Amino acid sequence: MLQADGENKRIKKQMPIFSSVGGIAKLLVALSLLLSVHSCTEQQLETTSMRPAPKMILIIGDGMDDQQITIARIYLSGNNGRLKLDELPYRGVVQVQAVDEANPGQAVYVTDSASTATAIATGRITSSRRIATSAGTDERLLSIMEIAQSAGLGTGIVTTASLTDATPAAFATHINNRFCQGPADMVSTIGATRTPVNCSQYIQANGGGGSISEQIAALEIDILLGGGTQYFDQISEANSAMSVMDAAVANGYKVIRKREELALIEADTKVLGLFSPSTMPVRLRGVGGAQAEKIERINGQVRLPAAYSCEPNPQFAGMPTLAEMTRAALSQFDDVRGFMLMVESASIDKQSHRRRPCGSIGELAQLNEALEVALEYAVSHPETLILVTADHAQAAQLVSEKVSLLAPNHASPGFFARLLTPEGSVMGINYATTDWPRQEGHTGAQVPLYAFGPNVNQLPSFIRQAEIFGIMERHLGLGSH
Amino acid sequence: MLQADGENKRIKKQMPIFSSVGGIAKLLVALSLLLSVHSCTEQQLETTSMRPAPKMILIIGDGMDDQQITIARIYLSGNNGRLKLDELPYRGVVQVQAVDEANPGQAVYVTDSASTATAIATGRITSSRRIATSAGTDERLLSIMEIAQSAGLGTGIVTTASLTDATPAAFATHINNRFCQGPADMVSTIGATRTPVNCSQYIQANGGGGSISEQIAALEIDILLGGGTQYFDQISEANSAMSVMDAAVANGYKVIRKREELALIEADTKVLGLFSPSTMPVRLRGVGGAQAEKIERINGQVRLPAAYSCEPNPQFAGMPTLAEMTRAALSQFDDVRGFMLMVESASIDKQSHRRRPCGSIGELAQLNEALEVALEYAVSHPETLILVTADHAQAAQLVSEKVSLLAPNHASPGFFARLLTPEGSVMGINYATTDWPRQEGHTGAQVPLYAFGPNVNQLPSFIRQAEIFGIMERHLGLGSH
Repeated sequence: MLQADGENKRIKKQMPIFSSVGGIAKLLVALSLLLSVHSCTEQQLETTSMRPAPKMILIIGDGMDDQQITIARIYLSGNNGRLKLDELPYRGVVQVQAVDEANPGQAVYVTDSASTATAIATGRITSSRRIATSAGTDERLLSIMEIAQSAGLGTGIVTTASLTDATPAAFATHINNRFCQGPADMVSTIGATRTPVNCSQYIQANGGGGSISEQIAALEIDILLGGGTQYFDQISEANSAMSVMDAAVANGYKVIRKREELALIEADTKVLGLFSPSTMPVRLRGVGGAQAEKIERINGQVRLPAAYSCEPNPQFAGMPTLAEMTRAALSQFDDVRGFMLMVESASIDKQSHRRRPCGSIGELAQLNEALEVALEYAVSHPETLILVTADHAQAAQLVSEKVSLLAPNHASPGFFARLLTPEGSVMGINYATTDWPRQEGHTGAQVPLYAFGPNVNQLPSFIRQAEIFGIMERHLGLGSH
Repeated sequence: MLQADGENKRIKKQMPIFSSVGGIAKLLVALSLLLSVHSCTEQQLETTSMRPAPKMILIIGDGMDDQQITIARIYLSGNNGRLKLDELPYRGVVQVQAVDEANPGQAVYVTDSASTATAIATGRITSSRRIATSAGTDERLLSIMEIAQSAGLGTGIVTTASLTDATPAAFATHINNRFCQGPADMVSTIGATRTPVNCSQYIQANGGGGSISEQIAALEIDILLGGGTQYFDQISEANSAMSVMDAAVANGYKVIRKREELALIEADTKVLGLFSPSTMPVRLRGVGGAQAEKIERINGQVRLPAAYSCEPNPQFAGMPTLAEMTRAALSQFDDVRGFMLMVESASIDKQSHRRRPCGSIGELAQLNEALEVALEYAVSHPETLILVTADHAQAAQLVSEKVSLLAPNHASPGFFARLLTPEGSVMGINYATTDWPRQEGHTGAQVPLYAFGPNVNQLPSFIRQAEIFGIMERHLGLGSH
């Protein structure tokens, strides 16, 4: 075992014998140990080729703020329970950062997954909707994944969203607007207001790298797992005889579409796994599809909605879990070479936008299971750093499930769910950032950072979002790009 | 200097010489050092009477969740700035805990400052509105402050609320309902619904300890600073010839009512400082009294409210700051004896209830200044542990200040403020837990725990609220009560 050999050669910097030594015999042993260790300097050991290189697993819970974590903990483990996340030795907070597109010197306090993923992936602050490009000036911003790849490290992206969605996209592609996911989307409109989207300078015929899916098809990332077939089934803009998927195959990607195929992937072949047309279906839903709703007021009296439980989402059947995808990605990397793996649990955010607390809870369960897989790996590969963070906070709030004694005729002005917990109490969950029926907005609160691995006790308790890039870069030894 | 002497006698457990030793000469020095240290055991040093005893400063930011901290950081220091809080070496999270009064086995997920302060102060979970008494059974729950006092330690309570308010009350008094603040309140009603309050079994004529102010007047706490004269000016239920204030004086309290008097207090006299009728006025307010408001909708079009700044609150003039009160409290304690000091920044919560973001921001500024005073003390008294936490989360959310491009006719269904920041951007702040015009509710998210002092790197990243009691108890060496 190469990894075990490397481990044995490490110098134990703080030898416990010194803090508990009780007599001269032990001191003499310590003396001889120190002398023998110093016959081989630390520098020499560091460069031993058999020592496993640093490995980085970044887990992003999209929209995973303290409200979401608390709601999930209570539902999944009870009020006195704990999540896998809660067992990590380090937990700090991260200030989200973004700037205005028209005036990049001006701070914007509430932003989206595109700019926040760009901050994490590249260490640079940008404006909403931008994917690893700079606000205003459209500079291409190099990501930690690209730097790792250039340095010969293994690379992987795993997500429950479409692989073309903002978070995964910012780790491997560059474009001015997150909505340019496929070649058909480069000049288009979104929403009922038909807000224009224009990525024309990125069209391949204009000398650009193409849409996000086209850029992904051209990558050399070792493993890519998620949803998004609808963006890869589009006809390639560069060659009207082939789809983007064909282009990925031509570029050497083995494409898989079924959970069972995850077990068959081989480490010497690049893998593109696409398991659903867009976002992968979530694990849980409200019983019968129940979700938060507007509270009825009849003759001035508040009628709270009935409490409901979560149930398995039938559409999730046949989907690989985030833990299974994470395990498959880790299997692509050998023990010696370093790697950069990003794992996103995307639907904490997406289900909160849609006011579906069970969807967010099931997704947080998936994140915790994926973390468990990552922790198992890190325990047997102690050169692995695991970071878990969120890109931004979300709308949902855990609130009283009852109408106040002091104000029985008043309740949430927004959308409200009463969720029956397995321990027999009821959680009130409030979504009230907007009265837009279609979806809630984000919030701008600081987000969590959890860590496990070498030197995590030296991380400060507070950092800014772009500094996560630096932590990963230093851990992987990539500081000289 | 007694404190410095004690410091010099400590064993340095991890002697740095071992990690950087480069030759035999240094090893021999280390050898002789270790031998000499072991001629006097650590046990003997621990019991040296001159060594300063452990000291505990607990700072509670009422309602201080991640939203409030982020809003305050941005307003006070800018999006790239930091608060004093952000410099602390440890930052974990705390799961709030409460149970149902009628069924104490049943979890309640969103609760108030009375039950949460009881959990922190006594290590026991109770129901909303209860002050250091058990749900259902009305057992008297001993607080860390009372245990510290019994052990001969110094004790102090500092708050920007009335001293009779839930958080300070739970550290020193015991009653079934937080609203029984003075002798006139023992059987009463609150709110427009005239919800009954009944503390009759605590009336002194019934053999009880009296209302919260009466119980405070009978205390032996060394220093009590805050608001609340209206509850102390009431006629004592035990003796109709005297007010509760008279009873406090008869019990040996020196009563002060002015900021200037803080400089004149003496360490050998118990001090009761009351600086306002109830909650102390806050430092900041919206310009001209501006606060969050309902968003106007005219012909289906959203009209966002004008952005405003914060300004000094004129009513704050003449008030002692939380930092000044904290410094005065610390001056009551000598260097050798241990002490338990609780400092509450109460109006983060109270101003959020009233939808006044500037009020909460000014109060968070006060908390950070009080923390700075505590840190100065702790640096010169390294036997001091500082914990900073919140009792529960609050309604306010940092949201986009603009109407969404995709939904220009939709905005917050609640109360909304647009706050102009000193760096020239605008924060949107949303209050939408209820449509009750009078006040917002709490939320149930996990809350922060910050720490500075001995062994804080050994604290787990996640704890339950009642465990804070145990951390304080162990630090103060009070585990054997």
